[in-house]
Amino acid sequence: MYTVSKERMTEKIETFSRFGALEGGGITRLSLSSAALEARAEFAKRATLLGMSIESDDTGSIYATLPGDEEGLKRIVMGSHVDSVRFGGNYDGIYGVLSSLETVETIVKEKIPHRHPLTVMVWTNEEGARFEPAMMGSGIVLGKFDKEKMFKVVEVGGTETFGAALQKSGWVGDISHRLNKEEYCAYFEPHIEQGPVLEEEGLEIGVVEGVVGMVNYDIILEGVSSHAGTTPQGYRKDALRAASKIILTLWEELSKLPSDLVFTTGQISCKPNIHTVVPNYVKFTLDSRHKDMGVLAEVVKVIENLPKEIYGCKLSYEEHWGRKSIAFDEGQIGFIEDAVKGLGYSYKRMYSGAGHDAQYVSELLPAVMLFIPSKNGLSHTVVEYSSPEQTWHGANVLLNAVLAADAAL
Amino acid sequence: MYTVSKERMTEKIETFSRFGALEGGGITRLSLSSAALEARAEFAKRATLLGMSIESDDTGSIYATLPGDEEGLKRIVMGSHVDSVRFGGNYDGIYGVLSSLETVETIVKEKIPHRHPLTVMVWTNEEGARFEPAMMGSGIVLGKFDKEKMFKVVEVGGTETFGAALQKSGWVGDISHRLNKEEYCAYFEPHIEQGPVLEEEGLEIGVVEGVVGMVNYDIILEGVSSHAGTTPQGYRKDALRAASKIILTLWEELSKLPSDLVFTTGQISCKPNIHTVVPNYVKFTLDSRHKDMGVLAEVVKVIENLPKEIYGCKLSYEEHWGRKSIAFDEGQIGFIEDAVKGLGYSYKRMYSGAGHDAQYVSELLPAVMLFIPSKNGLSHTVVEYSSPEQTWHGANVLLNAVLAADAAL
Repeated sequence: MYTVSKERMTEKIETFSRFGALEGGGITRLSLSSAALEARAEFAKRATLLGMSIESDDTGSIYATLPGDEEGLKRIVMGSHVDSVRFGGNYDGIYGVLSSLETVETIVKEKIPHRHPLTVMVWTNEEGARFEPAMMGSGIVLGKFDKEKMFKVVEVGGTETFGAALQKSGWVGDISHRLNKEEYCAYFEPHIEQGPVLEEEGLEIGVVEGVVGMVNYDIILEGVSSHAGTTPQGYRKDALRAASKIILTLWEELSKLPSDLVFTTGQISCKPNIHTVVPNYVKFTLDSRHKDMGVLAEVVKVIENLPKEIYGCKLSYEEHWGRKSIAFDEGQIGFIEDAVKGLGYSYKRMYSGAGHDAQYVSELLPAVMLFIPSKNGLSHTVVEYSSPEQTWHGANVLLNAVLAADAAL
Repeated sequence: MYTVSKERMTEKIETFSRFGALEGGGITRLSLSSAALEARAEFAKRATLLGMSIESDDTGSIYATLPGDEEGLKRIVMGSHVDSVRFGGNYDGIYGVLSSLETVETIVKEKIPHRHPLTVMVWTNEEGARFEPAMMGSGIVLGKFDKEKMFKVVEVGGTETFGAALQKSGWVGDISHRLNKEEYCAYFEPHIEQGPVLEEEGLEIGVVEGVVGMVNYDIILEGVSSHAGTTPQGYRKDALRAASKIILTLWEELSKLPSDLVFTTGQISCKPNIHTVVPNYVKFTLDSRHKDMGVLAEVVKVIENLPKEIYGCKLSYEEHWGRKSIAFDEGQIGFIEDAVKGLGYSYKRMYSGAGHDAQYVSELLPAVMLFIPSKNGLSHTVVEYSSPEQTWHGANVLLNAVLAADAAL
């Protein structure tokens, strides 16, 4: 088995952590911001020095390609994104780009023979923190979002459109350079887990079999607002009391479904939200995810079976959006799993609970992801952390998986 | 027993409903707004036509006084306020002013002999909807608030200070005209109930014995934010789940206390409040009111005995503010109760759950309030309503109570 350089891997993480660095740790490196453009420039410089050629597509996504030894073979592509959320960390996204770059650097420096061209990708605007929605770049390429509409999206808290920011960035390339089936044959995306499972179970690698499906509902309780001082308790129709009861009911009922189901009531709004007035309207979100769409159908049944009235308040709900679960390519999963086994790392096969560009790519190319542990399961925070050992393990798995794919495909 | 004119009472309500009228009903007549100044001008015009002299104090509160038949007697004062909340109704506050004006008009028109001078008051800025806090005028007069500080208060959603608005209004008078013990001997304040009790129990009048005491707490749950898709349920420390449980626990525990205790969780905030993130911080308010401070001490005990940890989240609380319960003067209550009985109206003795200027005045003068029913218990809304019959009943009670006080004091 081959291994990458631990020192180089660590240096890459440290260097890129400077682009958008915050006092006290972490980064804010919003899509196409000057910090993100610095990261892109450093990536392009390093890729060029490794002998890679740089292309970008019409959404600004970057494709750096190292030629292969055989003519006429399709490219193997690996990568992720360089943008972060506000007050994000030094691993989410960028780890996938840098472990891919380190994989190519190892192949170049150690002159490891490879048949296929190898491409390292940077997807534009994965986080959607500046320009909503998330996974915008891959979503446009895969036909999920309308390009014209997306170009008109205005940044959160500002006035610039995605299209204008992209134009200004200098990274607008040709539509013909978009990821496609004719030129590419396999996609790999390393990422941090963003959850606690690998750490809690003491495992080194997550072999990602797919991305869980998801349902997202708004649940609404409507009561009657009345005066906190003059309305006896028996007369009240308190929407927040009703919402509290429904949140606990959801925990109770959904906990009866398979234990790997996740569900979250993350957002709540209350009207009139004045401390002297009984609330007449509360809306909260329910996000639930599982790899088995049958289990999600059970979740929907639980929602449909919620009482229509509770504490005098009317309950209603609307489906906000959802997505089907995605299963990654078994051949690609096999390359990762074999690499993990060959390196002697502990691992588990698991589903990704979060969305990633790989889920869109999987509709185009055989795709797969690998996870490394996240300290305390935390991401999208300045304290996001994976150790040099862990980032090295992940890159070693990628290197060997890519070389196995290169031999087999 | 005397009665006022039902037609005049109704005409007054209808006329004053025009000042700040909204399309489709109700009013927005914020303190010292042009709508409120129109109402003040109409009040002053009508009082003057009745032979009353107009004074105002340094906070802009108005005192319109009809001379009495005997020299050297103190004034009996009655009234309330003309300002409203945003999207308020045609009764809260203004009913107290207009029933007082109608009482004097009846005495003048029917030449009813009375020994004391009779004063009708308009308190400045009772609602606190434009300039916070509520009961600002009476609060300054009673030494609850610092005048200089209050004059610097900037309007909600604007730039003008209370002091500047007051100056511009033309209603700034002399500090010597403030309500005081030397010139005044009794205070009456008619008001709508703002709650459902009188209507539900089919009663015509509430004889108000006092204003309930109040405690107000912030209750805080602190958990850990984590990703909605990647954090198994067992690892979660979900602050909104914990808050939901505590809200229901408060309902359960506080419902064991006397049934006339009221408690409200009216305001909630959640962080980060994103549908894909487990909440790590939820704060909600608890407002609880009762006439017996001993019962409120039991409420505080319930709060102190809440679990310090729930679903892995830390619970803490802070007392926000509170107020002692106020008992009105038994002599004044007697004047109201005797008038109600004499008129043959159904009634109950009750406490006010809401705050009113009368509660501050009660520290200076023998004071009392009377309530008329509120349709569906609603106030601070455009659909606030009391019938012409009900507004007439209340004014009849006031007229006879004032005349009884006039005879007795």
